[in-house]
Amino acid sequence: MSLALDLAREYKGLTHPNPTVGCVIVKDGVVVGKGAHEKAGLPHAEVIALKEAGHRARGATLYVTLEPCSHWGRTPPCVDAIIQAGIKRVVIATLDPNPLVCGQGVSKLRQAGIQVDVGVLEEEARELNEDFFLYITEKRPYVTLKLAQSIDGKIATKTGDSKWISGQKSREFAHRLRHEATAVLVGIGTVLKDDPLLTVRHIPAKKQPLRIVLDPDLEIPMGSKLVVEKSAKTLVVTSSDNTEKIKLLEDMGVEVLRFPSEGGRFNLRDLLKEFHRREIMHILVEGGSQTATEFIKAGLVDRLCVFIGPMVIGSGKTLGDIGVEFVKDTPRFTLRRCQVIDQDVYLEYVR
Amino acid sequence: MSLALDLAREYKGLTHPNPTVGCVIVKDGVVVGKGAHEKAGLPHAEVIALKEAGHRARGATLYVTLEPCSHWGRTPPCVDAIIQAGIKRVVIATLDPNPLVCGQGVSKLRQAGIQVDVGVLEEEARELNEDFFLYITEKRPYVTLKLAQSIDGKIATKTGDSKWISGQKSREFAHRLRHEATAVLVGIGTVLKDDPLLTVRHIPAKKQPLRIVLDPDLEIPMGSKLVVEKSAKTLVVTSSDNTEKIKLLEDMGVEVLRFPSEGGRFNLRDLLKEFHRREIMHILVEGGSQTATEFIKAGLVDRLCVFIGPMVIGSGKTLGDIGVEFVKDTPRFTLRRCQVIDQDVYLEYVR
Repeated sequence: MSLALDLAREYKGLTHPNPTVGCVIVKDGVVVGKGAHEKAGLPHAEVIALKEAGHRARGATLYVTLEPCSHWGRTPPCVDAIIQAGIKRVVIATLDPNPLVCGQGVSKLRQAGIQVDVGVLEEEARELNEDFFLYITEKRPYVTLKLAQSIDGKIATKTGDSKWISGQKSREFAHRLRHEATAVLVGIGTVLKDDPLLTVRHIPAKKQPLRIVLDPDLEIPMGSKLVVEKSAKTLVVTSSDNTEKIKLLEDMGVEVLRFPSEGGRFNLRDLLKEFHRREIMHILVEGGSQTATEFIKAGLVDRLCVFIGPMVIGSGKTLGDIGVEFVKDTPRFTLRRCQVIDQDVYLEYVR
Repeated sequence: MSLALDLAREYKGLTHPNPTVGCVIVKDGVVVGKGAHEKAGLPHAEVIALKEAGHRARGATLYVTLEPCSHWGRTPPCVDAIIQAGIKRVVIATLDPNPLVCGQGVSKLRQAGIQVDVGVLEEEARELNEDFFLYITEKRPYVTLKLAQSIDGKIATKTGDSKWISGQKSREFAHRLRHEATAVLVGIGTVLKDDPLLTVRHIPAKKQPLRIVLDPDLEIPMGSKLVVEKSAKTLVVTSSDNTEKIKLLEDMGVEVLRFPSEGGRFNLRDLLKEFHRREIMHILVEGGSQTATEFIKAGLVDRLCVFIGPMVIGSGKTLGDIGVEFVKDTPRFTLRRCQVIDQDVYLEYVR
């Protein structure tokens, strides 16, 4: 199962809106087939592993990180393939939260006389696909908020400078977070101030996430990198009626989503529903402070990834009002990871 | 040497203004004497260990965490005792920065024909007495700044509430920091808001640090715990001329230090010189945000101990202006420790 998880991890971020899945087939103590789901539309991990195993699958044990599907999606149901191949035992790390699948894959296998065990390395398997699970059950993208801050929690100085609060290795790590996401999201303030590229760099990139800008008044400069630079797609969310500028942006290949706002703010919960319809499974929110604050305030941050650089900034940009007066009423997170990256500290919290 | 360091550590915080020292004497592979310096005025570690070893010290090896003294202080020089006891070899973790001692203890021992080795577990030994070393070389107390903050760097909510940002175990740990300090220091704002006791609790306390309040206008309420509660001494620093209130405070056993201030602020560097004269070796600054900011701004924080609780506060109290406009100009620290304490994260930085 550990090997199956490793196979799955290689494609983390590449299978959206599908989960990441790995599969290993073992016969008489020898691995006879391995597979991972590489991309939505391509074969599932089980099918690839069964193909490699061929006739050796008969009487073998199949380890898979997620419950095999029992329904017709973009590909035929995997449970049928497993049954037909003559697999004797199936070991599953975790069940599929998808109501079309959950438990049904297991029942179908058992009905065919196959021994099924569930729950091996379940925690790792659940974490690997926690974004997919939330996307399925809550019908909205999983939201990761990334913050790079000083020891005293400032994400920029009072003049707006933030280069560089975190070190080179942390920034590489942050690009891995981008690579895992379907889309990277910033507010227009960040575009106007930093003109960021928001692509995956510093690490080998097998895909580029969609770049989303929350831009109620359509202030995005036509010369900004998100418009001009084409290595990733850009989606601008706006409530502006400026059809002329919208046309110009569309001519530049930028997609524009018209969405209502109130007082210069979008209803984030509604907006995430729209993103769900667009099969955006995992959003990385990269700031600035206003956008980060709004996601926290709306209770929509599922994972909080904080890089702490070894300096004190004093007065500067930091998270703003979330309507909390007492510590006992604050939104709380669960610390999942604490890691030193050179002189930086990386903290990962989940809800 | 590791054992000698352990012996020394037991008395960390109790020997001010002296360093913490441990000593172990080994003869033919057997420990024949152990000692630690327990308190200023009491015998040094070497003398205690030599006494325990008695005649077995002859031809033995003496391990000591700090260079033995060669001068008359409150007790006679240890090097003479070592020579007289017939010690054959002395292993020293680190030299003494005190110009009255540095290197002279070693020379005197070598002149007496004793083999001397310096630098065993030097880093640990230096860290153990880093407060003493700074106190001697810079002629001011070593300053530890403690912050208990949310993930987003807030030390209280906008209403001033800070109970409890860090968990029970972190607070015990924070009381160990108090125990290591000669004095605990807060601004009058913290006294007026929280009425803290500032004593060592939650852990067995072998001493209570002096409680210092920076109170330019002598606003301290006569009924505050720092005045009424007598389990530790209190020193109020003020520029007020209110001789009547000063008299009342003194009658309550509170010491009052008159010290000039400008615009409601003391010159901290000058004040630390005064504390040095009073043999205050190590100050723990416990806030609030104004006091913490002033110490950071003055470049007077030698160690920064941060407890991060697992919540987001949003707008709230945080470190204020330190006059920095760009990240490249920020005061930087070196990360020395990163530790998970239940759901909190403890970060320890030094200059």
